[in-house]
Amino acid sequence: MQRTGVTLELARFVVESRWSSIPGAINHEARRALLNWAGCALGGCRDESVGAALAALSEFAGAPQASVLGRGGRTDILNAAALNALSSNILDFDDTHLRTVIHPTVPVAAALLALAERTRVSGDHFLHAFILGVEVECRIGNAISPEHFSAGWHITATCGIFGAAAACAKLLGLDARKTAWALGLAANQAAGTTGAHGSMTKSWNMANAARNGLMAALLAEKGFTSTEQALEGERGFTRVFAQRRDLDEIVRGLGETWELAQNTYKPYPCGIVGHPIIDACLALRDAARVAPDAIEHVELRVHPLVKLMMGNAAPRTGLEAKLSVHHCAAAALIRGEVGVREFTDACIGDPAVVALRARVSLVEDPAMPKEAASVAVRAGGSTLDKYVPHATGSLERPMSDEALERKFRSLAEWGWPQCDTRSFIELAWSLDKLADAGAFARAASPPHQ
Amino acid sequence: MQRTGVTLELARFVVESRWSSIPGAINHEARRALLNWAGCALGGCRDESVGAALAALSEFAGAPQASVLGRGGRTDILNAAALNALSSNILDFDDTHLRTVIHPTVPVAAALLALAERTRVSGDHFLHAFILGVEVECRIGNAISPEHFSAGWHITATCGIFGAAAACAKLLGLDARKTAWALGLAANQAAGTTGAHGSMTKSWNMANAARNGLMAALLAEKGFTSTEQALEGERGFTRVFAQRRDLDEIVRGLGETWELAQNTYKPYPCGIVGHPIIDACLALRDAARVAPDAIEHVELRVHPLVKLMMGNAAPRTGLEAKLSVHHCAAAALIRGEVGVREFTDACIGDPAVVALRARVSLVEDPAMPKEAASVAVRAGGSTLDKYVPHATGSLERPMSDEALERKFRSLAEWGWPQCDTRSFIELAWSLDKLADAGAFARAASPPHQ
Repeated sequence: MQRTGVTLELARFVVESRWSSIPGAINHEARRALLNWAGCALGGCRDESVGAALAALSEFAGAPQASVLGRGGRTDILNAAALNALSSNILDFDDTHLRTVIHPTVPVAAALLALAERTRVSGDHFLHAFILGVEVECRIGNAISPEHFSAGWHITATCGIFGAAAACAKLLGLDARKTAWALGLAANQAAGTTGAHGSMTKSWNMANAARNGLMAALLAEKGFTSTEQALEGERGFTRVFAQRRDLDEIVRGLGETWELAQNTYKPYPCGIVGHPIIDACLALRDAARVAPDAIEHVELRVHPLVKLMMGNAAPRTGLEAKLSVHHCAAAALIRGEVGVREFTDACIGDPAVVALRARVSLVEDPAMPKEAASVAVRAGGSTLDKYVPHATGSLERPMSDEALERKFRSLAEWGWPQCDTRSFIELAWSLDKLADAGAFARAASPPHQ
Repeated sequence: MQRTGVTLELARFVVESRWSSIPGAINHEARRALLNWAGCALGGCRDESVGAALAALSEFAGAPQASVLGRGGRTDILNAAALNALSSNILDFDDTHLRTVIHPTVPVAAALLALAERTRVSGDHFLHAFILGVEVECRIGNAISPEHFSAGWHITATCGIFGAAAACAKLLGLDARKTAWALGLAANQAAGTTGAHGSMTKSWNMANAARNGLMAALLAEKGFTSTEQALEGERGFTRVFAQRRDLDEIVRGLGETWELAQNTYKPYPCGIVGHPIIDACLALRDAARVAPDAIEHVELRVHPLVKLMMGNAAPRTGLEAKLSVHHCAAAALIRGEVGVREFTDACIGDPAVVALRARVSLVEDPAMPKEAASVAVRAGGSTLDKYVPHATGSLERPMSDEALERKFRSLAEWGWPQCDTRSFIELAWSLDKLADAGAFARAASPPHQ
């Protein structure tokens, strides 16, 4: 369907939306998303990629305005947005909007929380801007899915920058024209392909989306002009970045439906299409109690997309292993759990894991639903099967609030063991009542030295 | 032609190239390009876009490391790269690699000069890195032209970031693998469409290319990993950003031919496809001496591309007027020159210009060469014609060194009248002899207050 004025219509929605019109369930989902996100940031903050980025960029940092989550120390808000986006994505443990495969919280929350440490704002205003940012990025993603991702774009980065820009524009109180400019600046900084997945650059795409989305709003605020047809224009984002588009997806039912209701959280820190395989392997391990070295063969029957996204049979690094269903299956069968430790060099090079990984084969089955998987383990002459139609963490089997709290504690323990997780979790659930949303960032960061 | 390993091959060329192998003519052309670029930066430094960017970003700037050309004051090198790229492009007066329509110097010089103020380097090393950066960006552009630009990409930004990254990698002395990573990081930050042309965002695309190309090299230096197949990979830059590619263009004849030899400089600060029209109008004005208000009609006969790129018949702002052949023709016929003053609000709103602009019509003629134009002026019942096969500043009629010096003086007078232009021009011609290339930046910047 052909539409005109979609960008301004979306901008006006962001400007005119009122907190009182946000459903309670969406308020709750936003807090779930932010608790999950903060855990990912704490879990990822010690990754060597974050160290390398700090080593490269600290020299150029501005005044200490915002927290580097989990690590302590403060930096300017643009750098904070980038670093917190990097650390919260590097474990591949963040949330997923399944229809688009966007990981919606990282770019929006990283940009917005940094801004909230500089521009004091109450918790409800912060949550409101966050919810609108997620709405903007996911709706733009809906309009160009699945063609955009299939063409090689890293959709969380390319659409996430719009979410970050929109959320920051809301927090800064920009009018509709300046909000449209912020979206125009975002369209012209949208970047990131899937061609560097398996390297640190994958998560740097998130860092850029967060920082540049924030910068787009800051520039627009000062009168830096842009197009007002960033999305629908003849050379606008949806035309240049996708072979097909449905602009109606961007504006249909605005304020009536909320994309956050479609958000999901991962129990395992790796590519989401591998999750039903892990569920199946853990279930088989529990049921059969076969010794890993007795396993002769493991067959994974999956939709062809799984091979495309996670078909690396012999990963050499943690980042590669996160996109290897072979590794995920072997780790699950040997370790009985698949957490951050199962993607360390120690586990990837563990001779038992290496040996079992080599006995995993992948069968592509176009009839298999994308969200399902079937695993067959042959050991001692007999074969055990397990079919998982929907993985833990899917919309059909969502993680409970308690499971998200456990995940947070486990990630905090990994990245910042001194974290007072009980206080932080209480703070996260009460985000909509805080007088100063910046307290959320400060509680996720070691005290200044 | 299918190629593998193109990215590493290009990276190795950058690493292994020696200054002694650069032809004298290319050394000279590099100094012409940098003199022209510095003039554009001085001429553009007072533009309101630069003021808006400074207003938005100064709060987040780091330590004063590098000059903001023409304005004085220093900022961190990432911000300096962005601001100097913005100011040197905003007048649309920078150089052009005609085959690709890349404006090669802006992103490479802005990034490299900022880095040279932080990492002391001799003039010949600086020029060498600059020449290699231009080579990289233009060769990548060659490989995907004209499809890439036609699809709506702002090719100077999307390819310029590779040039900036390669030049900075050379200056930092990175090895081939890290240079390839820098190109990988560049590929994942490549951004910018032509959808915001006519607004300040157009030149912000340059700012991002310069800053992010520099950042790519700085990150790679510290071990931030990326793909080593940024250009040719299955989801690499040339596949995601273009419908067709010829990877051989990237590596064929490396070190034998130099893209800087194809560089051209503009005598008029507007879209280059309008230049033959301006030449024709100035010639007709000189020859006929008709009073502008006696002109009944002006007909511009041009290739259809000209309408696509510069077909705005009723521009409202200076940025829009730069992409309006109607305005260019009217201004040339009335004012007898087309410089920075002809794109100010005063000229755009001048009743005489407005009236004549309305009497200009554009005739698309597919048989007309893209680089030519024919102008017919009807006045007092008779019609005068002028056909221009190649505009001033084209490869066929290049601007002389003296003409470039005049252009520099005129731009400096516009943006920073106190500039000691004579000393600066001498410095530019002796760049290859300088002990510290940073002197070039300091000479283009008012003394610290």
